[in-house]
Amino acid sequence: MAEPFHVDFSGHLTMGVLGNHLLNCAGVHAASRGFGMAELNESKYTWVLSRLAIEMTEMPYQYEQFTIDTWVESVYRLFTNRNFRICSKDGSPIGYARSIWAMIDMKTRKPADLFQLHGGSIVEYCTDELDCPIERPGRIKVTQTEPVSVFKSKYSDIDINGHVNSIRYIEHIMDLFSLDYLKNHALKRFEMAYSAESYYGDELRIYQEETNQDSFDLEIRRMVGEKEEVCVKSKIFFK
Amino acid sequence: MAEPFHVDFSGHLTMGVLGNHLLNCAGVHAASRGFGMAELNESKYTWVLSRLAIEMTEMPYQYEQFTIDTWVESVYRLFTNRNFRICSKDGSPIGYARSIWAMIDMKTRKPADLFQLHGGSIVEYCTDELDCPIERPGRIKVTQTEPVSVFKSKYSDIDINGHVNSIRYIEHIMDLFSLDYLKNHALKRFEMAYSAESYYGDELRIYQEETNQDSFDLEIRRMVGEKEEVCVKSKIFFK
Repeated sequence: MAEPFHVDFSGHLTMGVLGNHLLNCAGVHAASRGFGMAELNESKYTWVLSRLAIEMTEMPYQYEQFTIDTWVESVYRLFTNRNFRICSKDGSPIGYARSIWAMIDMKTRKPADLFQLHGGSIVEYCTDELDCPIERPGRIKVTQTEPVSVFKSKYSDIDINGHVNSIRYIEHIMDLFSLDYLKNHALKRFEMAYSAESYYGDELRIYQEETNQDSFDLEIRRMVGEKEEVCVKSKIFFK
Repeated sequence: MAEPFHVDFSGHLTMGVLGNHLLNCAGVHAASRGFGMAELNESKYTWVLSRLAIEMTEMPYQYEQFTIDTWVESVYRLFTNRNFRICSKDGSPIGYARSIWAMIDMKTRKPADLFQLHGGSIVEYCTDELDCPIERPGRIKVTQTEPVSVFKSKYSDIDINGHVNSIRYIEHIMDLFSLDYLKNHALKRFEMAYSAESYYGDELRIYQEETNQDSFDLEIRRMVGEKEEVCVKSKIFFK
């Protein structure tokens, strides 16, 4: 259900909250097949979200119920594609999402071979029963040299691993847009590409570029000494 | 369940997320008795949260399940006391909360008489079966003249009514504290007193005062022209 504190000024579920629900569904789905975070952690591995693309024709309204289906589309040696379908209460699709995950060794932070995990049994869960009719995540390029926002990460940004959490980045990006703009432009598609972690107290800078009318490429960079490191890229399309 | 993106650096549920769960429970409980927001809105009334006090002996850890009980302790003409009990998975209490609500006329924003609502049948739901062994919300007084934080409210702060939402205030207050401080001080009790609404783009100023060791009184004020208006007061106790 779209809870009252999870909807925005327009009464619709926020992209951040939807992202949270998708990642939770991924977690539950993986866990019930022996590939969950808790199970992997025991064997020193963990899932890392690399890409996320969400495309909605409509967002659930306050108090509306919705459902999320998720399935594994394909598995490669170093990453796996997981898709999602979001349906309204009456069962009709209102959106889809694609995600790309890698598995890493928690100690070395190096990618692990998915075909080695549980004797490669993860491939048995791949299915093409459900279709995901949205485009794959695209290339994101920002050439802007002036940030549109500069801030320090705070307590509420940080997850159990000491990193700025994947959902908070979405919220920080949405906060770049004025209420006036958002009143006239519904969010259609939101892409995230996670490349490096940022930490508590990091100075984060957001760079934004309008690539087409009402389409934006963004980068969030952290300061490492005098240098900038790209942590997250994002691509947003408004209607 | 304490979801991964709902826990902080320590792996424990954040106070903001817990607050959200409590208010949702209040909503469900009221709705199933005919006093929910949706039912009231039809008759031009709405519930307004006036005070909230949460006291925890421990916070649920990531992936831990917990339950929330809620009940109406008392009803007066202009406000009602609703309490909460939070239990761990094994059923033992890990915290309690108290809240005070008024009902207002959505048009005039004036308080409404609770005894007039549904012929006063709300009193039938009062119960003393459950005990709420935490103190009532206390007096909050801030004399500081220098704000510790100044910021503008953004998209993510705003709810369907166009107001900064009650939960976001809790997060903004938590963000005043450094990770270092929070590593050494577990949150014990969090009080909120909501007195005026703030809006999109408002300049918000937080004033903070250490009243005792590891206890703080806070005020969030909005700028109205050249003047400040108190929107929220808060009182926090750390262990």
